[in-house]
Amino acid sequence: MSKILDHINFPTDLRRLSVEELTQLAQELREFIINIVATKEGHLGASLGVVELTIALHYVFNTPKDLLIWDVGHQAYGHKILTGRKEVFHTNRQLGGISGFPKRSESEYDTFGVGHSSTSISAALGMAIASQLKGEDNHHIAVIGDASIASGMAFEGLNHAGVTKANLLVILNDNAIGIDPSVGALKQYLTNVKTGTQQQDNIFEALNFDYSGPIDGHDLPKIITELERLKTVKGPKFLHVITTKGKGLKQAEEHQVKYHSPGKFNAVTGELIIKSNLHQPPKFQDVFGYTIVELAKQNEKIIGITPAMPTGSSLKYMMDELPKRAFDVGIAEQHAVTLAAGMATQGLIPFCNIYSTFLQRAYDQVIHDVALQNLPVIFCLDRAGLVGQDGATHHGVFDLVYLRCIPNLILFSPRNEIELRNIMYTAQLGLQHPIAIRYPRGRGTLLNWEQDFKSIAIGTGICLKKGAKKAVLSIGSISENVSKALDLMTKKQSLEISHYDMRFIKPLDEKLLHTIFETYDSVFTIEDGVINGGFGSAILEFAAKNNYKTSIKVLGIDDDFVHHGTIQELQQQCKLDPEHLKNWFLN
Amino acid sequence: MSKILDHINFPTDLRRLSVEELTQLAQELREFIINIVATKEGHLGASLGVVELTIALHYVFNTPKDLLIWDVGHQAYGHKILTGRKEVFHTNRQLGGISGFPKRSESEYDTFGVGHSSTSISAALGMAIASQLKGEDNHHIAVIGDASIASGMAFEGLNHAGVTKANLLVILNDNAIGIDPSVGALKQYLTNVKTGTQQQDNIFEALNFDYSGPIDGHDLPKIITELERLKTVKGPKFLHVITTKGKGLKQAEEHQVKYHSPGKFNAVTGELIIKSNLHQPPKFQDVFGYTIVELAKQNEKIIGITPAMPTGSSLKYMMDELPKRAFDVGIAEQHAVTLAAGMATQGLIPFCNIYSTFLQRAYDQVIHDVALQNLPVIFCLDRAGLVGQDGATHHGVFDLVYLRCIPNLILFSPRNEIELRNIMYTAQLGLQHPIAIRYPRGRGTLLNWEQDFKSIAIGTGICLKKGAKKAVLSIGSISENVSKALDLMTKKQSLEISHYDMRFIKPLDEKLLHTIFETYDSVFTIEDGVINGGFGSAILEFAAKNNYKTSIKVLGIDDDFVHHGTIQELQQQCKLDPEHLKNWFLN
Repeated sequence: MSKILDHINFPTDLRRLSVEELTQLAQELREFIINIVATKEGHLGASLGVVELTIALHYVFNTPKDLLIWDVGHQAYGHKILTGRKEVFHTNRQLGGISGFPKRSESEYDTFGVGHSSTSISAALGMAIASQLKGEDNHHIAVIGDASIASGMAFEGLNHAGVTKANLLVILNDNAIGIDPSVGALKQYLTNVKTGTQQQDNIFEALNFDYSGPIDGHDLPKIITELERLKTVKGPKFLHVITTKGKGLKQAEEHQVKYHSPGKFNAVTGELIIKSNLHQPPKFQDVFGYTIVELAKQNEKIIGITPAMPTGSSLKYMMDELPKRAFDVGIAEQHAVTLAAGMATQGLIPFCNIYSTFLQRAYDQVIHDVALQNLPVIFCLDRAGLVGQDGATHHGVFDLVYLRCIPNLILFSPRNEIELRNIMYTAQLGLQHPIAIRYPRGRGTLLNWEQDFKSIAIGTGICLKKGAKKAVLSIGSISENVSKALDLMTKKQSLEISHYDMRFIKPLDEKLLHTIFETYDSVFTIEDGVINGGFGSAILEFAAKNNYKTSIKVLGIDDDFVHHGTIQELQQQCKLDPEHLKNWFLN
Repeated sequence: MSKILDHINFPTDLRRLSVEELTQLAQELREFIINIVATKEGHLGASLGVVELTIALHYVFNTPKDLLIWDVGHQAYGHKILTGRKEVFHTNRQLGGISGFPKRSESEYDTFGVGHSSTSISAALGMAIASQLKGEDNHHIAVIGDASIASGMAFEGLNHAGVTKANLLVILNDNAIGIDPSVGALKQYLTNVKTGTQQQDNIFEALNFDYSGPIDGHDLPKIITELERLKTVKGPKFLHVITTKGKGLKQAEEHQVKYHSPGKFNAVTGELIIKSNLHQPPKFQDVFGYTIVELAKQNEKIIGITPAMPTGSSLKYMMDELPKRAFDVGIAEQHAVTLAAGMATQGLIPFCNIYSTFLQRAYDQVIHDVALQNLPVIFCLDRAGLVGQDGATHHGVFDLVYLRCIPNLILFSPRNEIELRNIMYTAQLGLQHPIAIRYPRGRGTLLNWEQDFKSIAIGTGICLKKGAKKAVLSIGSISENVSKALDLMTKKQSLEISHYDMRFIKPLDEKLLHTIFETYDSVFTIEDGVINGGFGSAILEFAAKNNYKTSIKVLGIDDDFVHHGTIQELQQQCKLDPEHLKNWFLN
């Protein structure tokens, strides 16, 4: 039997359907998403939850003239499929394929690029004000989840919108979960509204929004009716929609955290296709997670903090074992950092675990609240460097630069699991400075990584291999690619090259650097971050300051955004893979 | 007659007084602040508004064991005077004197360093959780203004606190004004609460706080009674206090914006002692303010945005003349940037004016919402470089580094008023990239600055002076110090030195740089920002990439926080004044 979805390529197609047909379309769209994500992987649960809402929005509103902004964008797969990208949806998140997030360069229906949370209200308000000034009467809709709306930036957007007459509709997609379950007082409040224990004269009305809801986000006719009504309401409006993350796939509904981004699974049964972890090195995040539990059991001053990434950071382990001392503060990076600073003033030892790309959200707090006061907060920056399929919004490639310029801050990058464990151990022994420890997404290289702790001397690099003429200076886990590059060489070629892992971007091991610059004809630096102002730049500054005239070749990521693909593919693109490195070193 | 204040050095002293005596003390404290700020300058209005609250807090609570955090800190003069710093208060904001803001290194009563807004709730909560874990029963009080509480970060703190049982008291010091009048929906809501048009079952109660107020913040007995009561309430509490900024000095009450930081004034009459502006170059902020009005009248796409600095940025001029196109969005830097991005997607040309130090608050939005999408937002970064008396929290010395690493972004620093005007003119002609224009606090150097607009070719530096052997490469207004340094030299000495203003940190004028590196024996770079990763570093990267072996000396701010003093004093400290520069160039 021919499917309705077969004939739907753009929203204009679905606007010809009856409400009954739309309900059928919802079913087919859900299956389409499940079938492709089951084999191609990606973010599943969020998109399944908004299938009806997605159809209703494109049905009621005149997209792309009416401007629709998806917050974060995990939930936009249905939107992509219904806006001209059905045929290429199987390339989702792959090198050269479509992005896993809405992206302006990809479609006129993607009105604003997203990836980080809580930007949609501000962006939609900017668009709505623009329309107002131009005398246009189009609509502007931000769809934001209950985890994202609790972030400070979303509040700022609401606070401004409430004093405008902008034609803005904020839709709260309330499923009580982000990647992990939502937290915070606002979440409790929303639950009270849903369950009727709180009157509806509510926070959003207090902020001057015309509030309606909560309504069932899987009741397509009801959503359509409500959206039609809201089209006629002037000024800022707020619609509270209740959805179920993972809707339509039993396991995804029951295990919402696991099915946020489940990897491969059986499209019919929903069962995960799990690769064995046996004989594989651990993920860096798990090394962090296990190690903080181990340390915290010995040192009662240790605290763990994550802004909404308990599973992704593996702080979950500590939250389970030592719940009073491990905090998920929600999508609130700014608060997370200053909370840690406040704790540090009282002698606690907070490990604040934030993905590298998300620490950009708390840059001022790192400078102003932590480093300026020289408070010994321990930042663990997961997902540093290229992160792969999440692409340009998520690569952690700026951290070496934006942290290196901050006085008082120690900056370390572990080469492997043991070094991550040992620097965590070292940091909690009583450092007199804040420290940032940045490590990559994914697995390490060691099976026997659970060694006894050894402290690491601050500001010391190490020699991994001795050679005669050239020195390669790497930082952190990208050192592995250097080792592989050396393995690709002939023995004679390899004999020419020394390899140092500097480990500390700050303080630099100046003693070691003097030796290196006095010994070798040429120096290479390598980092999995942007070149402008990064680790290589630190080495150039050292050389200039000390009048060394040695040739220095700086390798890293050029001054351009890197898009999505596997980490390996992206490293090749950036010429940081072993093969390219080998060629750099030999030329 | 002996004054009560003469006998008060620490809170223990005032705890011996009767409530009647405290009322007298309030009067004396107010006079003390007025008398010193009248001649020594500083932030006046905020501290006058909280005199009674300050006394009450130190009277009721057992500071410093009970931990008191002042948000921003403009209002902490009374606190400083009552906590051991009465005798040194006249050194406020001067080189080597006490800081204008609470500072941990200065006093155990300054529990958390502040300067930037909206950090107090997070910090206090961190302390309160620490006390809870340690089994201590002390109190934790954050005092935050109504402008600051509307910032996203404060909301994040409230949202977390509401689900804890921490012993936290948040006091809202509601005077309906920050530096400029408060804006936003929350402000309107608070006004409704105050005037009784909104029921008290309110936002803060919705976030699980035990709410009380509003109470009169100048009624000392009433505040004391209420604070005593709140000491016995468990968990997170919220007290809404109404105060008048500038209380007790008629002019300061009537002209609250002007008397936020009024400069010198007559302590008896309150009259400002105004220096004539005649025959003085304009402030850079005014060049921005006048120029955006001039341009916006010709180009209807131009929009002005400021996060709560209409007066400080001089966007006020546009708000007065073109109110529909100029927006004060409150203390909401994150929102300001993404709002601008949203507007840019619709073809508007937003000038987003943010102090350099405050753009740190919106770093992720610059990367993720503007640069990644290559949206032509025009950032005007006022107060870049060393800012003087506001000190370490406010210097805009990191921007060259944290912006230089962002792809797509153009980065320009005008040498003088004419260049600021011309780059603003150039930027609105239809740039295909975002641009950041960073300029300093204070006055320029030109009287005849209102010249006809000329466009500036992107990525071009200029030669200011030709010489034989050495090249000095400066960036922006610090170029003036180089010119002065050259003036200090003998003619023969000066003949050796060329001076280039590179203007663009990004894109660099590579053609000019090739000429420079092919011509001179040695190169100096100068910037009024941190050395690590900054402009000099960009020149080192260029030289390394192109294999130039020329000696390069990088001058700028070392890897340390710079404290307060006049800009001139701080430039001397950093060896960036003309005399030091002269010595650098000749050695």
